[in-house]
Amino acid sequence: MSDVKRVYTFGDGKAEGKADMKNLLGGKGANLAEMNLIGVPVPAGFTITTEVCTEYNAKGKDAVVALMKDEVEAGVAATEKAMNAKFDAKNGEFPLLVSVRSGARASMPGMMNTVLNLGMNDETVKIIAEKSGNAKFAYDSYRRFIHMYGDVVMGVEAEEGHHNPFEVVLDKLKEEKGYKVDTELTVDDLKDLVELYKAVVREHAGVDFPTNPWDQLWGSVCAVFDSWNTERAILYRRMENIPSEWGTAVNVQAMVYGNMGESSATGVCFSRDAATGEDQFNGEYLINAQGEDVVAGVRTPLEITTIGSKRWAERNGTTEEARTANFLSMEEAMPELYNELNTIQQKLEDHYHDMQDMEFTVQDSKLWMLQTRNGKRTGAAMVKMAVDMLAEGMIDEKTAILRMEPNKLDELLHPVFEASAIEAAKELSKGLPASPGAATGQIVFSATAAEEWAAEGKKVILVRRETSPEDLKGMYAAEGILTERGGMTSHAAVVARGMGKCCISSAAGVLVTGKSMTINGVEYKEGDFISLNGTTGKVYDGKVATITPSLDGDFGKLMDLAEKSSRMYVRTNADTPADAKTAREFGAKGIGLCRTEHMFFEGDKIWKMREMILAENVEGRKAALAKLLPVQREDFSGILEAMDGFGVTIRLLDPPLHEFTPNDEASQKEMAEKLGIDVSIVKAKVESLHEFNPMLGHRGCRLGNTYPEITEMQARAIIEAACDLKAKGKDPKPEIMVPLIGTMKEFKMQEILIRETAAAVFAEKGVKVDFLVGTMIEIPRAALTADQIAEHAEFFSFGTNDLTQMGFGYSRDDAGKFLPIYIEKGILKHDPFQVLDQEGIGQLVEMGTQKGRATNPELKVGICGEHGGEPSSVEFCHRTGMDYVSCSPFRVPIARLAAAQANLR
Amino acid sequence: MSDVKRVYTFGDGKAEGKADMKNLLGGKGANLAEMNLIGVPVPAGFTITTEVCTEYNAKGKDAVVALMKDEVEAGVAATEKAMNAKFDAKNGEFPLLVSVRSGARASMPGMMNTVLNLGMNDETVKIIAEKSGNAKFAYDSYRRFIHMYGDVVMGVEAEEGHHNPFEVVLDKLKEEKGYKVDTELTVDDLKDLVELYKAVVREHAGVDFPTNPWDQLWGSVCAVFDSWNTERAILYRRMENIPSEWGTAVNVQAMVYGNMGESSATGVCFSRDAATGEDQFNGEYLINAQGEDVVAGVRTPLEITTIGSKRWAERNGTTEEARTANFLSMEEAMPELYNELNTIQQKLEDHYHDMQDMEFTVQDSKLWMLQTRNGKRTGAAMVKMAVDMLAEGMIDEKTAILRMEPNKLDELLHPVFEASAIEAAKELSKGLPASPGAATGQIVFSATAAEEWAAEGKKVILVRRETSPEDLKGMYAAEGILTERGGMTSHAAVVARGMGKCCISSAAGVLVTGKSMTINGVEYKEGDFISLNGTTGKVYDGKVATITPSLDGDFGKLMDLAEKSSRMYVRTNADTPADAKTAREFGAKGIGLCRTEHMFFEGDKIWKMREMILAENVEGRKAALAKLLPVQREDFSGILEAMDGFGVTIRLLDPPLHEFTPNDEASQKEMAEKLGIDVSIVKAKVESLHEFNPMLGHRGCRLGNTYPEITEMQARAIIEAACDLKAKGKDPKPEIMVPLIGTMKEFKMQEILIRETAAAVFAEKGVKVDFLVGTMIEIPRAALTADQIAEHAEFFSFGTNDLTQMGFGYSRDDAGKFLPIYIEKGILKHDPFQVLDQEGIGQLVEMGTQKGRATNPELKVGICGEHGGEPSSVEFCHRTGMDYVSCSPFRVPIARLAAAQANLR
Repeated sequence: MSDVKRVYTFGDGKAEGKADMKNLLGGKGANLAEMNLIGVPVPAGFTITTEVCTEYNAKGKDAVVALMKDEVEAGVAATEKAMNAKFDAKNGEFPLLVSVRSGARASMPGMMNTVLNLGMNDETVKIIAEKSGNAKFAYDSYRRFIHMYGDVVMGVEAEEGHHNPFEVVLDKLKEEKGYKVDTELTVDDLKDLVELYKAVVREHAGVDFPTNPWDQLWGSVCAVFDSWNTERAILYRRMENIPSEWGTAVNVQAMVYGNMGESSATGVCFSRDAATGEDQFNGEYLINAQGEDVVAGVRTPLEITTIGSKRWAERNGTTEEARTANFLSMEEAMPELYNELNTIQQKLEDHYHDMQDMEFTVQDSKLWMLQTRNGKRTGAAMVKMAVDMLAEGMIDEKTAILRMEPNKLDELLHPVFEASAIEAAKELSKGLPASPGAATGQIVFSATAAEEWAAEGKKVILVRRETSPEDLKGMYAAEGILTERGGMTSHAAVVARGMGKCCISSAAGVLVTGKSMTINGVEYKEGDFISLNGTTGKVYDGKVATITPSLDGDFGKLMDLAEKSSRMYVRTNADTPADAKTAREFGAKGIGLCRTEHMFFEGDKIWKMREMILAENVEGRKAALAKLLPVQREDFSGILEAMDGFGVTIRLLDPPLHEFTPNDEASQKEMAEKLGIDVSIVKAKVESLHEFNPMLGHRGCRLGNTYPEITEMQARAIIEAACDLKAKGKDPKPEIMVPLIGTMKEFKMQEILIRETAAAVFAEKGVKVDFLVGTMIEIPRAALTADQIAEHAEFFSFGTNDLTQMGFGYSRDDAGKFLPIYIEKGILKHDPFQVLDQEGIGQLVEMGTQKGRATNPELKVGICGEHGGEPSSVEFCHRTGMDYVSCSPFRVPIARLAAAQANLR
Repeated sequence: MSDVKRVYTFGDGKAEGKADMKNLLGGKGANLAEMNLIGVPVPAGFTITTEVCTEYNAKGKDAVVALMKDEVEAGVAATEKAMNAKFDAKNGEFPLLVSVRSGARASMPGMMNTVLNLGMNDETVKIIAEKSGNAKFAYDSYRRFIHMYGDVVMGVEAEEGHHNPFEVVLDKLKEEKGYKVDTELTVDDLKDLVELYKAVVREHAGVDFPTNPWDQLWGSVCAVFDSWNTERAILYRRMENIPSEWGTAVNVQAMVYGNMGESSATGVCFSRDAATGEDQFNGEYLINAQGEDVVAGVRTPLEITTIGSKRWAERNGTTEEARTANFLSMEEAMPELYNELNTIQQKLEDHYHDMQDMEFTVQDSKLWMLQTRNGKRTGAAMVKMAVDMLAEGMIDEKTAILRMEPNKLDELLHPVFEASAIEAAKELSKGLPASPGAATGQIVFSATAAEEWAAEGKKVILVRRETSPEDLKGMYAAEGILTERGGMTSHAAVVARGMGKCCISSAAGVLVTGKSMTINGVEYKEGDFISLNGTTGKVYDGKVATITPSLDGDFGKLMDLAEKSSRMYVRTNADTPADAKTAREFGAKGIGLCRTEHMFFEGDKIWKMREMILAENVEGRKAALAKLLPVQREDFSGILEAMDGFGVTIRLLDPPLHEFTPNDEASQKEMAEKLGIDVSIVKAKVESLHEFNPMLGHRGCRLGNTYPEITEMQARAIIEAACDLKAKGKDPKPEIMVPLIGTMKEFKMQEILIRETAAAVFAEKGVKVDFLVGTMIEIPRAALTADQIAEHAEFFSFGTNDLTQMGFGYSRDDAGKFLPIYIEKGILKHDPFQVLDQEGIGQLVEMGTQKGRATNPELKVGICGEHGGEPSSVEFCHRTGMDYVSCSPFRVPIARLAAAQANLR
């Protein structure tokens, strides 16, 4: 096996590996090689291949160490040469310290071991102390190395019920000296600690801490290989289906230091502005400092560019004199190094065709790049950069679209907090980010109050235990909604997302009682100010200034690009003409789900509905329904007109009837009085409507099939509205959707009724309109028998909310008790109500689509569950061959982008 | 098209058609032909083919009448000859009257038209009056014919909002005469009615009633063809997927009359005894009577055989003298005709290889067979006949098994009412037949009372609003159970079936309050007698004598045959050693489902369970579980020992924890006192455990994965019990079943825990037992991802109850509101909780089995839902390739028979 290459070196602009050797070198090793090859100065080192790991597991430690010994020594020698330093330095030679890190093909976060500062011993620490002029840093690094090595390689750890022995020693010393924090330790303290730590190693491991760097190196390399087979790593791989044969690579890389004096420095920089997207190199640096100093905030980091420095001075009211005296940019202070860095950042951006986020260190006037990666950015910057880079010719249209993170468009569509204001704000609680955006206003505790205060021009936050359909108008009037209870798909969450209104649900520590609330014990009254960030779920005290973003030309360009690149189109879920209009402005081409039941809660419609429910026979129900007919017709007319020319899918009555009857005694009395009947009748009706599992009860088409007169009234209202609009020269396109179908006959019976009703209306009005009759596929059995259903249905709309509930057997309202634990334990990757479970529920969606199209090739197929606005789910819908996705109005741009990405992939 | 044959005649021992020409002649036409061919005297006639119907629809009435005219006339002539009668009889010729009936390939009950007594007119009625000596009969038939013909052929029917015009005329006449019932009408009245009816036809149809029999015939034939395309027939075919091209045949057949004087008679007879199975020809007849007289009970019908007549006399205390004077058998009264009939019945039984139920008429000393079909029989007769016929060599083993109706075995396994006693009993109410058998006893209203009274030797019926696990012992003590509420799968129903105990649920009009109940307003108190028939759901007043059936040798022979003929084996669902023993006696080979949660309700175990639920942290739960461990171990030991040598599938804790906590205030207080805590803590816990849809909530493996310590305790109890038994020389075979799995990882986590626990127990005990770890497939997603789950699971058991709930989206507890309506409207053929929905849910079962076996060919697969004891579902399980089915103990013989039938088909 002498021709097997086990070690790949990199450094000095050369590398034996390259980017596409990820399987052999691991992700990290392949990238380090690539950086070298494009001429970026990266600290030198070498990678031991993943194949060696497999060999190690098969043949054992000693055999494999012997096999790779020569190559590893050659690797160290090459690193020494590239770094002009000496491993196991003696007599004042500059010591080469290295890091030893794992690097597997697949990420296994937190599973594998790392050793830093390897090469430290009683000799080298002195040289580093001297060369850096920073003895405290040198000895602190040394004692940390002993701790890390003792832990990772020598197995020195806390025994059960005891503290970590290194920490015991440290705490004891601090107590003796009266120190509170580690930074109070003096050089002498640190020297003492080094000796104490060595004694800990001796006592716990039974052998001395190895001072020979070669021993340290072999120990660390083997420890990384060993960590591949720890119990938790094996369990992790079993759970994640990562083959054991893959193994891990080991990266040994020289360490560099920015705190070696005034000719050293460290910093982070970005090739463009991550906040605005402006094409301006920028970043921060510190002379004679370590990387952590830049981010720790102990010293104020300086700007890298002069233009950045001047802008900073202006913002802070610093004079140019003071600036040049104390806050020189790197461009001014280290012009040659700055020029080198500037060239490199351009090279990296050109190489990766994207904005780069880089870390660098200058050690003794020599620039080293430690890391580069595509930089994180705000939603606005994301859009601007993509449009700019497309104009610059750096990327093509496909790349511009594919690079977008669709969810980030949210930031462009909703208010956000001012950056400075939010830094100063006091966080009170964190809940579920139920609907994105920022809002600030005065607390009100009822929908009525919200309407009244808003009418007076006040901005209000509606705070409720949970919301119900009766709160709709108050929710409209409020800036944001906060609820004590409920999940991501609670009433408040779904409705708020539909309105594009900020909402936080299940906020921790919030207790609402009447006209007051406590947050972790502190009382808040009506009129007090609070602020909500619905994107993060955070609740803040008092007012926090918000910015309302404006959609600029770049957004429009991007949406046009998306339009051009999509196969699917996007509809919206909307129950009101206002929502329909908003969505149309965002590019929605029709309505995928109009929920008729929401309409019954407006004004006094609820009373007509309740009258219908209380009716004792079909005649009584028909009489009550006759009163509902004109108001329903008006509802549908508004929606159809707002979406004129586009299809409008109207779902027939879906919820169980008990959702329309009151549960508390007072409301029952009110109902009895209003309807002129005895309260005992109301109570008996409410009791008879009670269900053990309402989710699986008497609802959807089961109502329509047991009370056909309801379906008839709704069908009549829809068709009459459409006929009247057509008579006025409009182009209404109603699509009547029968909910909760589980069998072909259930659909068939409703379809016949709808078509007969439509024929009657056409005859009465002397006008005809085209309309479709279709169904939701939301019950597993409907997907399984979709071939039969499609013989009669003209369209399918997948109701993936209910399909997920029934396919998983999870009640949305109750899953909060175990879903978070399931996600924490890795049983589920995502909440399946937010991200469609493609593996399981997705099979039902594919099956439903394929079977449906098998008997009806013309079948129109879409999705109207919450997943219709979630990018990975939209991509799945595209692959499944759907015609459209439908989502709440403010998710429309996101879905359009995701649809384009899906088509381009 | 002159070579197309459109009419097939039959009669006089000849026929142009035969049994296998059903597609052309329809079912009825093919059978009439077949009867002739085997030499049975059947009234002659002819069949117009289904192809003519299609031709009729394509070419229209006139064209097709012309095409078939010659053949129809020839058919009438052949019929006249065979019957020695004359169509359109004149001058005293004996008139040929015919029936005209539809006869499609597929049954379309109630959809198609029929005309009887065709050929009646002012001439023929006189001849019939004269020949029969029964003018009232003749004119009554005539006026009925005008009504029927007017309705079916001439479209004379009630206008909207009015009564039927024929009935108006009849009612008016009766009012004038002061008659209450039709039988009071005199011959003259009937003659008047004939004229009045003719006037009705003239007025409503605008033409005269056709007196020419040929006009009547063509009108009727065309009316039958027309009825193929009525709106309701088209709708019915669309719903039932019957192709329109099939068409219907038309059967024209001579009518014969048993009331033509003393040489005429009519009767029904059976080739063997339908009640006992005895090989004894038997039946009843009446001289000078119509068929309806035999069944109407106006005249007492006489026995056909002399032996039957003598037995009847003995039962009724009639002397032989009186018998021979007034009650002669047909064998004695009409010996020649009797001999002919006896020969025919033997011929028919030989031909059809089964007991025949026949109708016959003697018209003027000539015997005509009107109908023969396989006779209905009791369960005991079914078994005896099959075993006898097998011994006689009439049928083979396969036929003997296949002829069984498995559900009828129930009658052999449960008490039944004495026939004479039940005739006299007063029916009080009808409920759901929740568990079969008959019971009689004194009412008690609590489980405690049931136990106490039974201990005193009294027989009791336990009456409850609904039962809960706390009622178990009382249910054991009672003869039967009656509940006000609950469905076929309510607690009471499931448990009673398990015990083989009679149970009626949701009894109409029953209201239970404390120690009293009313049935439709009548009060029943503790100690009053009632009787229940759990097979029919009927509740009777007072004591009704029951017979306890004994399983005789025939039953054993049949079960041995079934055993020999099966591929699948049968297990039982049992939670107690007693149930396990019963099932083993019925031939169960192991337990397919042992529900551990039922055990928690016995004695004071519930308190340990509640202590566990109230524990605030894992330590508290572990402490409480430690107390449950020994009692669980004892439970499992008993079950494993009772099924020694057979596999015992033990399901880990399944129901949500709130099923173990009390909901009423008093019990909550008791719980608080018992556990020494404040009642507010109990209430808070109960509230926090509340779920909106408990069916889809925190239960099954979701408990085991969030509280692994519960799984650990149960696994330990099972394995410890098995080890202890093995040490005693027994052969325990535990199979641990994880419930409610939806994802592979959920199972994997539980499996690892169970195996680790088992390994620990083996080490502690120094004993090892073989065991399996598997799962229930009861969540749709589990079936969809069965390939992944089977990588780790050793067996699957389909929990088709929950799979049906989630696959259909039907809550068992709530579906009572719409399921009956769905079945009534034909949306569903069966209650899917009783009969497995093969079309939809069956796909999930097949998918789960195939996918599971694809990754694990050794996978053991069974079913443990209620469907495991339902014959058509058992057959489906066989086809799917399952290894076994599991059902409640008293269904085991039924399942064994069904398994054999499935294998033989």
